[in-house]
Amino acid sequence: MTGSTGLMTDRYELTMLEAALRDGTAARPSVFELFSRRLSGGRRFGVVAGTGRLLSLLRDFRFGDDELRFLRDEKVVDAQTLRYLADYRFTGTIRGYREGELYFPGSPVLTVEGTFGDAVILETLALSVLNHDSAVATAAARMSIAAGDRPLAEMGSRRAGEDSAVAAARAAYLAGFDATSNLEAGRRWGIPTMGTAAHSWTLLHDSEEDAFRAQVDALGAETTLLIDTYDIRRGVETAIRVAGTELGGVRIDSGDLPIVAGEVRAQLDELGATGTKITVTSDLDEYAIAALAASPVDSYGVGTSVVTGSGYPTAGMVYKLVARRSPDDGWVAVAKVSENKASRGGRKAAFRTVHDGTAQDETVVVSDGFEDVAEPVAHPDGRPLQVVLVDRGEIDTAHEGAAGTEAARAHHLRVREELPVRALALSKSDPAIPTLFVDAG
Amino acid sequence: MTGSTGLMTDRYELTMLEAALRDGTAARPSVFELFSRRLSGGRRFGVVAGTGRLLSLLRDFRFGDDELRFLRDEKVVDAQTLRYLADYRFTGTIRGYREGELYFPGSPVLTVEGTFGDAVILETLALSVLNHDSAVATAAARMSIAAGDRPLAEMGSRRAGEDSAVAAARAAYLAGFDATSNLEAGRRWGIPTMGTAAHSWTLLHDSEEDAFRAQVDALGAETTLLIDTYDIRRGVETAIRVAGTELGGVRIDSGDLPIVAGEVRAQLDELGATGTKITVTSDLDEYAIAALAASPVDSYGVGTSVVTGSGYPTAGMVYKLVARRSPDDGWVAVAKVSENKASRGGRKAAFRTVHDGTAQDETVVVSDGFEDVAEPVAHPDGRPLQVVLVDRGEIDTAHEGAAGTEAARAHHLRVREELPVRALALSKSDPAIPTLFVDAG
Repeated sequence: MTGSTGLMTDRYELTMLEAALRDGTAARPSVFELFSRRLSGGRRFGVVAGTGRLLSLLRDFRFGDDELRFLRDEKVVDAQTLRYLADYRFTGTIRGYREGELYFPGSPVLTVEGTFGDAVILETLALSVLNHDSAVATAAARMSIAAGDRPLAEMGSRRAGEDSAVAAARAAYLAGFDATSNLEAGRRWGIPTMGTAAHSWTLLHDSEEDAFRAQVDALGAETTLLIDTYDIRRGVETAIRVAGTELGGVRIDSGDLPIVAGEVRAQLDELGATGTKITVTSDLDEYAIAALAASPVDSYGVGTSVVTGSGYPTAGMVYKLVARRSPDDGWVAVAKVSENKASRGGRKAAFRTVHDGTAQDETVVVSDGFEDVAEPVAHPDGRPLQVVLVDRGEIDTAHEGAAGTEAARAHHLRVREELPVRALALSKSDPAIPTLFVDAG
Repeated sequence: MTGSTGLMTDRYELTMLEAALRDGTAARPSVFELFSRRLSGGRRFGVVAGTGRLLSLLRDFRFGDDELRFLRDEKVVDAQTLRYLADYRFTGTIRGYREGELYFPGSPVLTVEGTFGDAVILETLALSVLNHDSAVATAAARMSIAAGDRPLAEMGSRRAGEDSAVAAARAAYLAGFDATSNLEAGRRWGIPTMGTAAHSWTLLHDSEEDAFRAQVDALGAETTLLIDTYDIRRGVETAIRVAGTELGGVRIDSGDLPIVAGEVRAQLDELGATGTKITVTSDLDEYAIAALAASPVDSYGVGTSVVTGSGYPTAGMVYKLVARRSPDDGWVAVAKVSENKASRGGRKAAFRTVHDGTAQDETVVVSDGFEDVAEPVAHPDGRPLQVVLVDRGEIDTAHEGAAGTEAARAHHLRVREELPVRALALSKSDPAIPTLFVDAG
C-alpha cells in the first residue's frame, strides 16, 4: 500500500494486539489519553499542534500486502493478527483540543475511544506527530510573542529531518510565524514562502557588486541583499550604490546583531535608504529576539532554534489507557502508579475558565462513568476545549489541509490573547494557569 | 510527481537559480562542500550518517507537473527557470565520507561538484538529511560505547516526527545499536525489530496476573514482562509465579534504576530465575547507561535521548561554495569571511592518518587547482576518507537500502576501533584528534 503509515508503529503494539486477540481483551471498549505530565523547560504554556496532520496520516493507517508480508515474514505477529490488521480501519472516536489551543500539565490533548485493539496501535503515530509539532509550536509561540509586530520567518529546514522540516514549518506558522522558506510546506498547506540569497551567490560572482547587480536585475530593487559576505560596511555601501535607495532590504547573518543592526541602520539612513528594511537571521531564538526589541530590526528569520523546539525538541506527551470496560460491563478508570511516572485514570472533559477575557484556570472534569462517546459534561463558565476530530471512524476534514492550518493559526492567536500577562515572560516558571481536576461525581 | 523531493528546498535556492540563469553564472562549474565548523556539545568525534538515505532522495529530486504548477502559480520563479527545473536531474559528481565514518571540525563530509545551478539547489535536502541523521548517530555511538557488550535498542519513535523516527532508527543502528522498536525501519532497511509490552497491557486486564498470563500464553515464556505498573516487588513475584523461572526477561521503566535493578536481580535469583534478564528503559542517555555499568542490567532501551541527539538534535553542518571557475577558466577558491562564521575555500581531499592501529590526525589537503572531478591527491600514510557516491549523475547503489545500512554499520564499528582511548570518554572536550589542513601546493 503506497503511503501506508501502518508500520510507523512500535513492535510492542502489534504483539500486545496479538496477545489481546488471543485472550479476548482486544474487544474491550477502551479510552486512551494523550497528555503531558509537565511542560518542558519551565515553559508557561504549551501549544497543541499536529492534530490536522495526524488526521491525514490516520486515513493512511492501513495494512496492505506489503505491510502484511513484512509482518508475516519477520514473524512479528500470528495469522489471526494479520487477518485483523488486513481489515483494520480506525472506527473509534477521537476527541481532542482544537489545534493551536494552549495546553497545560495533565490537559487531555487527545482522547481516543475504541476497542483496545483498535486504539492501542495508534500510540506511536499519534505521539510522533503531536510531540514533534507541539514542541515546535510551543517554541514558535514564545518567539512570536518576543517579536511583537515584527514579521517572523521560519527558515530551519536544513536543521531538521527532511520531512520533519515540512511539519515544523506548519507548526511554526500556526503558532504565529508569518512565512517559511520551505517550499513543500507552501505547496502542502498554502503557507507563505520567502527567501533572500545565500553567501554562495556572492561568492559565485567575481565581485560582491556583480552579485548584487545580477540579483537586482533578476528580482528587482525590492529584493533583499545579503551584505555580510566580506565586510558589512562595504556591503551596505555597494548594495545602495547598485540598487539605489529603493532597495527593499538587507540581511545580516553574522556578528553581534544589536550593535551591527544599529550601525547598518545609521549607514542606510545616511545614504538616504530610509525605507530599506533590515532582516536578521543569525542563530536567533526567543531570547535573542527579545534582546533585539529596541534595535532597528524590521524582521527576523529563525532557523535551528524553532525547528528543534529551542532546547526541547519533543513535547514529552504520553499515550495512556485511562479507562476500560470491565467484564461486568461497567467502566473502570485505570492508571499506573509507577514511581515518578504515575498517571491519572478516568475519562476527562476539559474547560478553560475565562473571566473578563483572561484565562483563570484549566478545569478538567474526571469521570469513569461516561457512556460510550457521550458528550462531555458541561461546565458553567468554562470554554469547552475539546472537539470531535473523528466520529466513529469519520474524520472531520475541517482540520486538514490549508484550511485546517489557517483555522488552527487563527484559533491560536485568539486564545493566546486570553493568557494573563505573566504567561508571556520567557523565564522558567510554573504553568501560567493552574489545572484543577474535578471529580464528575 | 508522486514522491518528488524537489520542493524540500528553501525558496532562496530557486530564486538564486533564476538570477544565475539570467546572468549566465548558473553554468559556472562549482564545488560545494558540506561540513561542520565544530562538534556539537564538546563531543570528541562525530559520526557521518544519512548518506545512503540522501542518495535515494536525490533520485526523486525532480520537478514534475505538480511541483512546477506550484512554483508558477506562486510566482516563485520565472518561465526560464521553470523550464530548467522541468529538465533537472543532478548530473554532477558527489564525493563524500563513507557513511558511518567519523568526522571532525572541517572534515569535508560531502563535496558536490556540478554547475552552480545544478548544485546550489541541493543545499536544503542534503543538510536536512545529514544534519539529522549525523546528530542521532553521534549520540548513538556514545551510548553504544557506554553500553559495552550489553545490547542496546532504539525505542524513541514517539519522541520524533513520524518520518524522522524511521530515519533515527537507521542512524542509531549504524552507530552500534542492535535493534529498533520501529517496524517501518525494519521493513525499509532490514533492521532487527524488538518490543515488550506497555503499561496499558497490564491496565487492560483485571489484574497484573491476568495480564502476565495472557502475554505468556500468547508469546511464550521467553517474553519480557513489564513489572512496574503497580509495585515492582509484587510484579516480579507475580511474573515468576505465572511464567516460571524460564521467564525470558523483565522490564523496568521507572524508579532509581541502579538501586531497583539490584533489588530485582536479587529477587529473581532468590526465586530461582537466575537466567531471567533485566532490561531497563527509563529516560536513559549515555550518562545514565554509563552509571549502570556496574548494575546487573542485561540490556538497555533508549528513547528520547537518542532520537533527539542527546541535547544536540542537529549536527550543525553547513553547505558552502568553496570553489568555482572564473571567467578565464581557472578554478578559484572562495570563502566568506563573515565574523564568527568564516569558512575555508578550496576543494579538499581528506585522509585519516593511522599509526599502529590508532588514529593520529585528520589530514585535509586543500587545493583550488584540481581538474573537474579529478581523483583526490594521494597521501603517503593516510587512509582516504572520501568515496565517489555519485559519478556524473550515476548514483552508486551500494550505499542504499539494507545492504548500504549494514555496510555503514560495519564501517563505523571498524573505524571506531581506531580511536584513541581518550576519544571514548563522555565528558566535554576538544576533538579526539586534530585536523591538519595542508596546502596541495
